[in-house]
Amino acid sequence: MQMRQSHRTALQDLLIWRRDVRHFRPDPVDPACLTRLQRSMEHAPSVGNARPWRVLQVENAQRRAEVIASFDACNAAAAQAYEDAAQRDYLALKLAGLREAPVHLAVFTDLAVAEGRGLGRQTMPETLSYSTVMAIHTLWLAARAENLGLGWVSILDPVEVHRILDAPATWALTGYLCLGHPQTTSDTPLLHQAGWQADTRCTWQVR
Amino acid sequence: MQMRQSHRTALQDLLIWRRDVRHFRPDPVDPACLTRLQRSMEHAPSVGNARPWRVLQVENAQRRAEVIASFDACNAAAAQAYEDAAQRDYLALKLAGLREAPVHLAVFTDLAVAEGRGLGRQTMPETLSYSTVMAIHTLWLAARAENLGLGWVSILDPVEVHRILDAPATWALTGYLCLGHPQTTSDTPLLHQAGWQADTRCTWQVR
Repeated sequence: MQMRQSHRTALQDLLIWRRDVRHFRPDPVDPACLTRLQRSMEHAPSVGNARPWRVLQVENAQRRAEVIASFDACNAAAAQAYEDAAQRDYLALKLAGLREAPVHLAVFTDLAVAEGRGLGRQTMPETLSYSTVMAIHTLWLAARAENLGLGWVSILDPVEVHRILDAPATWALTGYLCLGHPQTTSDTPLLHQAGWQADTRCTWQVR
Repeated sequence: MQMRQSHRTALQDLLIWRRDVRHFRPDPVDPACLTRLQRSMEHAPSVGNARPWRVLQVENAQRRAEVIASFDACNAAAAQAYEDAAQRDYLALKLAGLREAPVHLAVFTDLAVAEGRGLGRQTMPETLSYSTVMAIHTLWLAARAENLGLGWVSILDPVEVHRILDAPATWALTGYLCLGHPQTTSDTPLLHQAGWQADTRCTWQVR
């Protein structure tokens, strides 16, 4: 299939208006929409066509509370790495929407996946987790196209989350995601707006 | 911005027709197009807004030859992991378009990046490399929208590639990419077509 200008424009809109969302409205996500997101994820690239991503949709209230407790503990510990003004700035940031988001998705990588037959990951085994990362990014863009927001919560103890969710032994947590309707839309990263870290440009060098 | 059905359709086209391309035509890539791809990459998500990806565009013939030699050695070693029919199947696969692709991009992660001020990666430091992976995936989709093909070559020794390209000490190789005009377009992964690994579906479980 040949792509047209309309494809390029649509992709730019999605890239520019995709945000890491931490401010959610409480309305539920339409199950049909969730199914469409699930299908989109199937098209993500993966090393050896292994498709190693495994998704647990966390609905149990006790489990959600334990994940939130893990976030609170890790976030409090993280704040200790900063001093004075930086610590105040850090503590003023809202870094997760775990309490408000209607959908929680824990995305794991199956490190013992048989599919792919090991192809492409003898010298760079990290490409297995990288495949899951691209599946998460696919979900992120597909969610934005549905006018949903997604936030990636990395301030968690992955071993603790694995235990809380009773995940199989060969799975490793890659990302914990909050999904729901965003309170606002924006073309500017929240950490840029908040003055924590301005947007920078990456230059390409020739070798 | 509110996204419309046209955004969803365009994204689905891009996801379904994105391939890992190993068969390139030799025509050069328009420099203006390469600049657009570079700009698209700036919109990728990154932990703490750190934007840790660093791109080296490999033009030097001697360096390209050394990268190809690294691929050949790693690929020959990888084949030894398979026996009999599987080894014949493996050796029949074309796993990289390094010799034909007009553009080679080595994408590194700066593990000592100051930007982001460490935010979001105390418990899961791998999110720094994951940010680079999402920048690569962004480039991949933007390339597809320009009717270009991209292939991710993971059958390389990352330390050797780092040395060949004389990369700064704090950079680690995340992905080595071939970019150019694809010989064909397809909605089916090459490893599925070739019978190496059929497409599988990932189920979501509730916890």
